[in-house]
Amino acid sequence: MSVPAKIETWQMIEPGKLMRTSIDVPDLKAGEVLVEVAGCGVCHTDVGYFYDGVPTVTKPPLTLGHEIAGRVVAGVEGLIGKEVIIPAVLPCNNCPICASGRGNRCLKQAMPGNSLGIYGGFASHIPVPAEDLCVVHDRKGLPLEFLAVVADAITSPYQAAKRANIQDGDIVVITGATGGLGVYMTQIAASMGAKEVIAIARNKEKLERSLEFGATHTISTQDKSIKDVRDEFRAYSKSKKLPSYGIKIFECTGTKIGQEISLELLTFVSKLLIVGFGTSKSEFMFSRLMAFDAEVIGTWGCPPKYYPEVLQLVLDEKIKVAPFVDIRPMSQIEDAFKASHAGNLMKRIVLTPDF
Amino acid sequence: MSVPAKIETWQMIEPGKLMRTSIDVPDLKAGEVLVEVAGCGVCHTDVGYFYDGVPTVTKPPLTLGHEIAGRVVAGVEGLIGKEVIIPAVLPCNNCPICASGRGNRCLKQAMPGNSLGIYGGFASHIPVPAEDLCVVHDRKGLPLEFLAVVADAITSPYQAAKRANIQDGDIVVITGATGGLGVYMTQIAASMGAKEVIAIARNKEKLERSLEFGATHTISTQDKSIKDVRDEFRAYSKSKKLPSYGIKIFECTGTKIGQEISLELLTFVSKLLIVGFGTSKSEFMFSRLMAFDAEVIGTWGCPPKYYPEVLQLVLDEKIKVAPFVDIRPMSQIEDAFKASHAGNLMKRIVLTPDF
Repeated sequence: MSVPAKIETWQMIEPGKLMRTSIDVPDLKAGEVLVEVAGCGVCHTDVGYFYDGVPTVTKPPLTLGHEIAGRVVAGVEGLIGKEVIIPAVLPCNNCPICASGRGNRCLKQAMPGNSLGIYGGFASHIPVPAEDLCVVHDRKGLPLEFLAVVADAITSPYQAAKRANIQDGDIVVITGATGGLGVYMTQIAASMGAKEVIAIARNKEKLERSLEFGATHTISTQDKSIKDVRDEFRAYSKSKKLPSYGIKIFECTGTKIGQEISLELLTFVSKLLIVGFGTSKSEFMFSRLMAFDAEVIGTWGCPPKYYPEVLQLVLDEKIKVAPFVDIRPMSQIEDAFKASHAGNLMKRIVLTPDF
Repeated sequence: MSVPAKIETWQMIEPGKLMRTSIDVPDLKAGEVLVEVAGCGVCHTDVGYFYDGVPTVTKPPLTLGHEIAGRVVAGVEGLIGKEVIIPAVLPCNNCPICASGRGNRCLKQAMPGNSLGIYGGFASHIPVPAEDLCVVHDRKGLPLEFLAVVADAITSPYQAAKRANIQDGDIVVITGATGGLGVYMTQIAASMGAKEVIAIARNKEKLERSLEFGATHTISTQDKSIKDVRDEFRAYSKSKKLPSYGIKIFECTGTKIGQEISLELLTFVSKLLIVGFGTSKSEFMFSRLMAFDAEVIGTWGCPPKYYPEVLQLVLDEKIKVAPFVDIRPMSQIEDAFKASHAGNLMKRIVLTPDF
């Protein structure tokens, strides 16, 4: 554990182009630490920045990557040597939005790999503000790099579940239930007491797997229209005598089809949480929300205050991460980006530094 | 005050056709009363049923009208002789939705002039459940028929304001601020402490009037694109140094243009309340809600528990009704429907029985 001469990194020098390079270790300001990266997850958002024209706040060149676990090697005295998870969204904690408890959408927030200057997780080290780091006191033998996915992939669905106020006995529907966010959304919903967790996705093999991780029923969208999916959902609800109202739907795909299915399933006093990001538009009769007294709630990131709760759920194995994580050396970043963009992965890739 | 031999009424015998007729006074069940109608407001919803193909729950023939004030003439002993406002939506008070505090969207609810059998407000009398009637103890000289608009036209915006949790210092934007719901939405927002109440509508004369009733600034949409309206809003916000986040937008038009303007104004940690009803569809990038951590909340009717609060605001003149009510004899119902459908009224028409 020591402060390196340089930070080694895979920089996005422009969208679509990565370069292995070294950058200076910055002077740490008061309240900052330098974290030696143990692992950084490859998120759909990174791939969006890299391939799909989604702009980063810091213009390239910058290092992508915002799902980071690692060890503090310099900075705030009491933290040196600690293992930490870096929240994907670091609020300023000093503005009216933060004061209102919505720090996850603080406008001065720093997001590694986007708006934390040029620094991101696909690197040997990263300088970050220390205030909101989630310290890992005892990871019960789970390798630290597996905990990288707590930042974003698990905490974003957790924040959505909190916003939806999932309760014992709830009926939960998840579109994209087998994807990077969905595999945790099913487990979180189950851990919060949902009676039914209906997993909607295309891939039947992945849907089968979801039944071991919180889902109680699956609906494949393969070769079906939106109305087919709706009718299958209704038939299942009827067969199980489930209420036709008060459904909590979590849209985790960010795709047009995922959004349109979830809008179609909206009903009286229901909530639709938009958890996945995408750039498509959908047509919708907004007055249906009025007739249904229903809500569509967008949810961005997760306030750092929830990280310790989420970490506890992971360490208690109420949320299992190991089956959904594929550890690879960071030198394979280009292949990892390609594979993530293709979208057929069974597991989320976490890259570990091998500079 | 006596029980009549027959109820006199203007029935909708089929959409687009009214007929003056008499119907039997039903046997009142336990917990029901017969109300002698003092006045019944003509709502956009009635006009939707009559002209625009919106289906009623009870198929015609039925009497329309759900904004009713009147006097109890039979039924529950303790209520006889009392002046009452009949909530536009009467929950069953005996189901999980009611138990959760969302009785305004109870699925077994009865709405006069829609789902309360054949009975509605455009009549001499109406039988209704007594449980949720709002008793008017002292109307301070305001004619009873003016209070008809408390049911729906004032309470629906009030419920929306409650759902949005309007607070001291809030920035409120209202599309359709000069319409049947909007004229009360501006006053309610101001009464709840909003610092800015920005009224958006087409008609400049009505917008001018809104400045006397809660609005702090107006934007006319006349001859402007959605982007023009947005730019004007932003320029005003900038000139007044208003925050660019946390806006509470109330869409009161139910029209495509109103909805699209309000969607365009959505920003970080903002809320859009859908208060007006219409059947048009709009295209929207739902992921914007995620990026903004923002919400779109549909709101239907109002739980009866809020009626006494709203009545008090009216009697205290924090919400003024007299300038927005046009009392006409019920025999002019056909003209009143036509005028409401044309949509150029400065005031809401309340019809008083003259059978």
